Amino acid sequence: MVTLKEIARECKVSPTTVSNILNGKPKVSEETRQRVLEAVDKMGYRPNYIAQGLRNQKTRTIGIIAEDIAQFSTPEILDEIMSCSEEKGYRTIVKNLRLYARWSDSWYEKESWYHSILDPTLKELESLRVDGIIYIAGHARMIHCFPEGFHTPAVMAYAFSDNKRVPSVAIDDKSSSADMIRYLISKGHRRIGVIGGREDNIHTQQRLLGYQEVLFENKILFNPAWVRYANWDKNRAYLAARELLKEEVTAIFCMSDQMTGGVYLCLDETGLRAGKDIAVASFDNQSVAEYFLPGLTTMELPLRKIGSVSADFLLKQMEGMEGEIPEKTLIPCRLIERESVHVI
Amino acid sequence: MVTLKEIARECKVSPTTVSNILNGKPKVSEETRQRVLEAVDKMGYRPNYIAQGLRNQKTRTIGIIAEDIAQFSTPEILDEIMSCSEEKGYRTIVKNLRLYARWSDSWYEKESWYHSILDPTLKELESLRVDGIIYIAGHARMIHCFPEGFHTPAVMAYAFSDNKRVPSVAIDDKSSSADMIRYLISKGHRRIGVIGGREDNIHTQQRLLGYQEVLFENKILFNPAWVRYANWDKNRAYLAARELLKEEVTAIFCMSDQMTGGVYLCLDETGLRAGKDIAVASFDNQSVAEYFLPGLTTMELPLRKIGSVSADFLLKQMEGMEGEIPEKTLIPCRLIERESVHVI
Repeated sequence: MVTLKEIARECKVSPTTVSNILNGKPKVSEETRQRVLEAVDKMGYRPNYIAQGLRNQKTRTIGIIAEDIAQFSTPEILDEIMSCSEEKGYRTIVKNLRLYARWSDSWYEKESWYHSILDPTLKELESLRVDGIIYIAGHARMIHCFPEGFHTPAVMAYAFSDNKRVPSVAIDDKSSSADMIRYLISKGHRRIGVIGGREDNIHTQQRLLGYQEVLFENKILFNPAWVRYANWDKNRAYLAARELLKEEVTAIFCMSDQMTGGVYLCLDETGLRAGKDIAVASFDNQSVAEYFLPGLTTMELPLRKIGSVSADFLLKQMEGMEGEIPEKTLIPCRLIERESVHVI
Repeated sequence: MVTLKEIARECKVSPTTVSNILNGKPKVSEETRQRVLEAVDKMGYRPNYIAQGLRNQKTRTIGIIAEDIAQFSTPEILDEIMSCSEEKGYRTIVKNLRLYARWSDSWYEKESWYHSILDPTLKELESLRVDGIIYIAGHARMIHCFPEGFHTPAVMAYAFSDNKRVPSVAIDDKSSSADMIRYLISKGHRRIGVIGGREDNIHTQQRLLGYQEVLFENKILFNPAWVRYANWDKNRAYLAARELLKEEVTAIFCMSDQMTGGVYLCLDETGLRAGKDIAVASFDNQSVAEYFLPGLTTMELPLRKIGSVSADFLLKQMEGMEGEIPEKTLIPCRLIERESVHVI
């Protein structure tokens, strides 16, 4: 890689002159300017943004840490953050921790595994002098990610930061689940079975709470036997659906579209049809939701909104307006009505 | 951000001593070492990897450019490249061009739009002194990406580079399509309709050629009326399926799982069942393929293999073994047999 000094030597001018020309400062003759720019082009000089950042103290770069780009919820959040950052004139650098790819589901119980990957990544981003960091979690939980005394502005997206100085932007699981249950009740359903994800997971717990609150509002007894857990797994959801059918529920609320794949498989085998013989309501509105037959009524995750709010909060911090940012922001989902819920 | 000099001043040693300690060189007393490391920890010093890279001439960093992380094929290729790089002790930096998010389907016809995004990204990666670059395309085509005289080692994944010094690693569309058509014929099908993607697209053209070659092998007349194009769009595939049913084909070969969603919708409306009344064969084995009922027989894209071969070729180049790398490598898909193709 050719340096500024070599360009200067080639053109018989000082390095400062080359630098002035590259930064558009109008102190040199047009002839010199042309000569230097041609040499820059010919010799393949590239300004060193990082060195510039060191001098300016600002790199105008935002670091984005994804727990795993392959998690279905991540690319859309990521895309929105990048779009917002670019609009404000910031470059972005993405680091992918690949946590699910490395350790499947078990990693978030091993603090030491997690930090063996996270800590060098945080150091690397600090060493690249990024102006701020957004962390995109793979699922909601309390995350011990940014140590006390972490100086770079930061935001936690799709989960909760235990460092109170880092604001969190996540889904409003409880109110969104409540909205779906109210919708089912408005269609006449009162025997509503539930297929939850992992039992100890915040998404599962908050969605269950939303279900329970709306039952209470409507004076419907809560029957624990109608709640099954399937660990976000399609095959286990298939088994759970078989059991719920025996309970003669008229509707099944399944907490993820992936698990609903198992419910539909069970109905197909039993000769039942969603939206005709039994109502099926789901959660996520993943791209797969468009392929269910009949069309799946589900809650759309507010992924783009989580991305844009996170970017907004980061930029506010970088401009010294921390005071305006709430510690925790919960964003509700939107109900997408298709054909899987009928009136009874 | 605290500097090495400030640490040195605080500990009353020379900057060289601090540097030696941080680089593990055993020239100082244990007492000094402890004192410096504590100061480093307390004052929050982070070594500047980039500055280190400038001195060593090697940053041990690989730049990855994705045309769009939100393309379904990209995350798996990306994950595999990262996994291979990390195994060999390389960091990775991801740049996402967001081409589909910006301009939907039209961008790759506008060379100037494309370069307005690509060129600054290439410059930025060069300025970060990455040791090599892998470019992950969103779909196969000839790409004018790396200019003549581009010095950094590079690989084109999932498409073709017009710069012959940059090796390309892509899907073997023709042989994979041929395999699927042979499979359909082995099940007794000879009236095979085709739903293609965009007509001018390499994937479509090569898959059609595979179909034609196998018809020829088996002395089956090629009927152009049985080939419809649906531009990778589910709704247009639905319409194409309706027309193919009128032609009384016994099998439909649809060139993407997303489009096959439209075929299944058409069958559902008509009261026909895949794998019983008509055979349906597809391409991609996207995650959605697992949700089709009955299960979808499809070709699995070799995304991980494209990732690992690309990483391998880049590392070989970086070690000066360009001679061993073919200009173009085509990787076949694997047939995933589920329930959508029956014997007639």
